[in-house]
Parts: sequence; structure tokens; C-alpha cells
Amino acid sequence: MEEEHSIRMDPCSSGKDKPQADQLEFGRKFTDHMFLMDYTGEKGWHAPRIVPYEPLTVDPSAMVFHYGQSVFEGMKAYLTPDGDAQLFRPERNFQRMNHSNNRLCIPSIDETFALKAVKQLIALEKDWIPKAEGTSLYIRPFIISTEPYLGVAPSRHYKFIIILSPVGAYYKEGINPIKIAVENEYVRTVTGGTGEAKTGGNYAASLKAQEVAEEGIAQVLWLDGVERKYIEEVGSMNVFFKINGTVITPALNGSILEGVTRNSVIQLLKQWHVPIEERKISMEEVYQAHKNGSLEEAFGAGTAAVISPIGELVQAGDHLEINDGKTGAIAKRLYDTLTGIQYGKIQDPFGWVEKIEDVKQTNLKASG
Amino acid sequence: MEEEHSIRMDPCSSGKDKPQADQLEFGRKFTDHMFLMDYTGEKGWHAPRIVPYEPLTVDPSAMVFHYGQSVFEGMKAYLTPDGDAQLFRPERNFQRMNHSNNRLCIPSIDETFALKAVKQLIALEKDWIPKAEGTSLYIRPFIISTEPYLGVAPSRHYKFIIILSPVGAYYKEGINPIKIAVENEYVRTVTGGTGEAKTGGNYAASLKAQEVAEEGIAQVLWLDGVERKYIEEVGSMNVFFKINGTVITPALNGSILEGVTRNSVIQLLKQWHVPIEERKISMEEVYQAHKNGSLEEAFGAGTAAVISPIGELVQAGDHLEINDGKTGAIAKRLYDTLTGIQYGKIQDPFGWVEKIEDVKQTNLKASG
Ligand SMILES: Cc1ncc(COP(=O)(O)O)c(C=O)c1O
Ligand SMILES: Cc1ncc(COP(=O)(O)O)c(C=O)c1O
Repeated sequence: MEEEHSIRMDPCSSGKDKPQADQLEFGRKFTDHMFLMDYTGEKGWHAPRIVPYEPLTVDPSAMVFHYGQSVFEGMKAYLTPDGDAQLFRPERNFQRMNHSNNRLCIPSIDETFALKAVKQLIALEKDWIPKAEGTSLYIRPFIISTEPYLGVAPSRHYKFIIILSPVGAYYKEGINPIKIAVENEYVRTVTGGTGEAKTGGNYAASLKAQEVAEEGIAQVLWLDGVERKYIEEVGSMNVFFKINGTVITPALNGSILEGVTRNSVIQLLKQWHVPIEERKISMEEVYQAHKNGSLEEAFGAGTAAVISPIGELVQAGDHLEINDGKTGAIAKRLYDTLTGIQYGKIQDPFGWVEKIEDVKQTNLKASG
Repeated sequence: MEEEHSIRMDPCSSGKDKPQADQLEFGRKFTDHMFLMDYTGEKGWHAPRIVPYEPLTVDPSAMVFHYGQSVFEGMKAYLTPDGDAQLFRPERNFQRMNHSNNRLCIPSIDETFALKAVKQLIALEKDWIPKAEGTSLYIRPFIISTEPYLGVAPSRHYKFIIILSPVGAYYKEGINPIKIAVENEYVRTVTGGTGEAKTGGNYAASLKAQEVAEEGIAQVLWLDGVERKYIEEVGSMNVFFKINGTVITPALNGSILEGVTRNSVIQLLKQWHVPIEERKISMEEVYQAHKNGSLEEAFGAGTAAVISPIGELVQAGDHLEINDGKTGAIAKRLYDTLTGIQYGKIQDPFGWVEKIEDVKQTNLKASG
């Protein structure tokens, strides 16, 4: 994008009813407007606009329906006690989106401009950010390939879209520990695959394991696709184990998504002088640690749930209870600190939060 | 589907111009009509209808855009010298579609009904089947998940759609040998993944390898994701090697798509008493065979290209010329026999072809 872009505003006249605080589900209701931008080979990314939320008109032969060339991101806007809206490390989401774009052969976006677009959209939809404890406005930027062509090749047309959804807590159970099953049959991805990209196919591949998992399993724990020994991540979270005072998380290896929450957890632990290791960790090691009593905590980390303590790990009929099935001290402290920073209730020593200025409905200029 | 379905017909009044024989590209032009059917948890698959080909109206939060839950098929209708339209083993495509559905947690379709739908659609579009040598009407049945929901879970709404595209030869080069690169960095899928399903994510994952491949490479040859030693398949074809008089193709292992053409090739070779083995075959074995002069032929097999002789294999700078870069005798015989049967020019001893009766535009009843 070489020229200056200004986001065309086409606000709707009357809005939808906003959901009650107690009716907030994850990802089912959407706000009144959305951001859209198009890509063609000739024009690059162009025509940024904020328009009423409405169905897309897509050709049945659009490549996204056939060859899955798409990427997405997930982040949140939080309301502070002062009534300000703020984001948590949003620049990392757009960096990651471009990382995903690269793997999927999708043209990269201007990260600075994307961030401005998100802010302008949220400024317009500020009243949609729910106020109750633990609630937020979920932000879903995504790119789909829209060229009407049935050949297996990168599309020449794309749409970059941002939609917003007011959400309650991701897990209805809240910060209570969840039960996770170790997946031994199905594989989500493998080194050389698309695991480190946030693309639909990884999630499509994951559905079956969840379907066949026993009752009460919140998510599955994926093992590496090669040796089926090393722990990778949970459905939509990175994973951490506290063994003998040291927190261990699988090192990024090309098949694990690099979570924004994961990175923040690592930084917090370092600040707290809690030993933290990024390295390979096998299920065998976790088993042994459980057996000899040194497995102190396990938890997942991701935008949706922030921190999810793992109270029980299930593998091939074995049930490993962790920390008596209760939330561990580190998980609790991380959860309180992260949500404290996100909601502007405690100080942010890292410069992680980004306030959304009240952009009003004037045109925003950006060199795209 | 418990009740009787009848396909609602809503033909358009005036059709589009049909492309000239010399302008036929693969998958760019579509016929005047398409078949559609909806799925909801309450109603199952319902409302089958043939309507004018037109854009779909899909919510931006539809799951297919985010989590890639989709499957597709590819088959062709051929015109015989008598002017009849016929299909090649179409029941296998719908069987495979249900196999894919199962892996992707998509509700299965009624295969018999789907075949009737395809026939009724083609009967209506019969004039769109191109007549020139090597041309055909490509048939693309596909299912997309349409529930407006951002949770990672199987969708509760789907659309099953069939679109048709008049096509020339897939490879512009025709039956001429192609150049294939062995892919050592990227992986398409792995055992436990979605490789044996025809789902978008596999193809999205494959784009990068093609992008970075050198000029002149038609497709890439995928190795297994675990040991990176064993040959799996080519971009959209299964692969065969003739070594010392025996034809070898990788055994189905869960990460290879079971091609209809692959199966037909195996049956033909058996009938011809050509030794054929389905087993693991490593790149090392192919290298050795090339070195000692026993690698006689290599070719790909798939609906789009039927048989594609491989004239050159490229791996990490090494160039292996096969059969002096010419089409081998077995590849040629398979191509002639398969296309002969498909176009009704030679006898079909296997009962592979299925004529499309002239269904006219009356309602077709089927117990769905
Ligand atoms: C597969 C996967 N791993 C990890 C995460 C955690 O990433 P983040 O902390 O950026 O939300 C997510 C998603 O949100 C995910 O989908
Ligand atoms: C990955 C892959 N392998 C093999 C094939 C060959 O299958 P078929 O002979 O049924 O066309 C295809 C597709 O058409 C394919 O996409």
C-alpha cells in the first residue's frame, strides 16, 4: 500500500439491541459495524471501509470455500474502571497475522494501518464493550481468499475483515480448573506444516479429537506429530507445567502457535524470578513428575481464557490429578496480574496496554 | 434425511455465453445453475434445489471463514461420440466425500441422492459440456460450515453445493511429461492429520512449497511428515513408479488421498498382468533405481490430468531425468485406456461409466 488510505465510514442509522450481561456467550453476537478492505493484484490492499455488519456476498467458487486459504487473529478490547477502552499488545496480533499470511501465501497487511482500523472500529462501537467483570469485546480480524477460481494456487483476491463480538468468560466454569485429554490418535499439525500459523485448517483438523474425547474434557492436549511424545499445546492455548519450582513450556518449534499470552506469561515469570524454561517436554516427563510428586501446577494460556488451570490430565484411561484439582498459586497470580493489567486495574510496567482514543467518526488518515 | 426429497427447480431464463473451445481454462467459468442443499441440526439435510449460479450470502462469522471446516470433491462429465453425457465412477467421489465428512465432523450426505442431484444438474446444463478433444465438464461438489459462531466446535449449519465448470486440459502441456520437485521443507499433512480427507486445509498448507519451487516445476512431490523419507503423493495426484518392470505406488496410510484414478490404474494394471505393488517407497529407493538404470517410468494419476508422466524429478539441486524425459509406454497406455473409457470411445469392461439419462426438468424424487 503506497498511497494514503482513508477509511470510508458508512455507519448504520439504528443499532441492534445489546445482549444482557448474563446472556453473553462467546462469539455468537456481533456489533453493528465491521471493517472491510479488499486486495487485488493490481491495486494491492485498498478501499478500507467501516460498514454495517451484514452478510458477505461471495462467489461459490471463491477459493476460501475450497482450498482453505485464510488466516485469522483473536484479541480483546477491555473497559477500564474509568470507562476507557483499551487493547492488550495488539501489535503482536498483527505481526502474527503477517507471519500467518506468509505461510499461507497471502499478501501481508500494513500492521500500523490495521491497528488504526481496529481502533477506529472500536471507537465507533464503544458502547458494545460489556461492563461486567470478566467480560470484554472480542476482536476477530481475518483474511479470506475470494478469487473465483478452482485451481490450487494462491488467490489473487482477498478480503481483510474485522468483526467484533461482546463476550462473557470463554469457559463457563471461569478460572476453575479444567480437564484436558492427551490426544494419541489425531494430530493437529507437524513441523513443516501450518501449526505456527493461525489458519482455519489447523482448527478443522482438531475437531475430531474433541468429538471423540470423553464427557467433561474441555480441550485436548496435542503431542508432536513425529514422535508423538512431546507436548505441543492445547486446543486454543499454550501450555505450562510447574515441576519442582520451575515452570516449563514447550519451545516454539514451527508447529506451535506463538501465543501473545504465552509471551506475556514468560515475561511476568521472569520479572517475578520464577524459573522458566522454554524447551521440549515429553508426556513421559509429566507422568514421572506426577508420580514422584513434583508436578505442582499445569495451566493453559490464551486470549480467550487468559489462564486456565488444568486440574486433571487424562491419557489412555489414566487420570492424573494436578494440585488436588485446584487452581495453583502461580496460575492464580498470573491470572490476576494479566486481567488486572488488561482491565486497567493495576499498573502496567511493560507498556502492554494501548488506549483507544475517542476517534469519533471523522476520517482517519494513514499511510498504508 | 428421513423424508422424500424432491429437488426444487428454479432455472434462469437466459443463459451466459459459453466459452470457445480454445478459451477453456481450468475452473474459471461456471455454468448457469448450481445445486444447493442446507443442513441444520433440527432438519438434517433439506431443501435441495437447483437455482441460477449466483453469489452466496454468508455471514462474516460463518465458521468456514475461520476454522476451515469444509470438504470438496472433483469429478468430470464427458461427452461420448454419440453425444451422451457420462460420469466416471461418481459413486466413489460421494463415498470419499462422506469419508472426508467423517474426519471433519460434518454430517454425512446421502450418496445416492447426491448422485441423482449431480445427474439432474448436468442434464439441465448438458449444452455446457464442451465437445473438443480432452475437454469436459468439471464437477465440484463441496460442503461449507455456515453457522455464525466463533467457537472452535463442529458447525451446526452447512451448505452442500455443486457447481460445474467447462474445462480444457488441466495441464496446458497436455500429456507431455512434467517436472516435479521433491519437497523437503514443507509438509502437507501427517498420519493422524487430515491427509486422507479432501479438505481445504491440506491444499492451503501446500501453497507455500509451490511458491518457493523453482521455475518450471508443475507440482511438488510430498514426503511423509514423520521420517521425511517415504513418498506420499503429488499436489493433486497420486504417484506411480515403474522400477524393473514392477509398478509401485505408496500404500494408503491415512495421510494420502485415495484417488479414484489411482484405484482405476491399479485395476487396469492387474487386468494387464503388469506387476503392481502398493507399499512404502522411499526417495532413496527411487534414487537408487535411477542410478542403476531400473527406474523406467514415473507418473501421476488424478481426475484433473488423468495421467501425467513425470519427465524429471528435482531434489535439492539434483535433477533426475526419467525415461529420457519422454512419456513412458505404461503411462501412455493408461492414459489412452482411461480417457477412452471416460469418453465412451472404447469398451468399459469394469462398469465404470455411468450415463446421464436425459432427466428433463421434471422433479426427481429420491428417498434422501
Ligand atoms: C492453537 C492456539 N494456541 C495458542 C493460542 C493462544 O494464543 P494467544 O495467547 O495469542 O491468544 C491460541 C489462540 O488464541 C490458539 O488458537
Ligand atoms: C491430494 C490429491 N491426491 C490425489 C488426487 C487424485 O484423486 P482422484 O483420482 O480421485 O482425482 C487428488 C485429486 O483430485 C488430490 O487432490
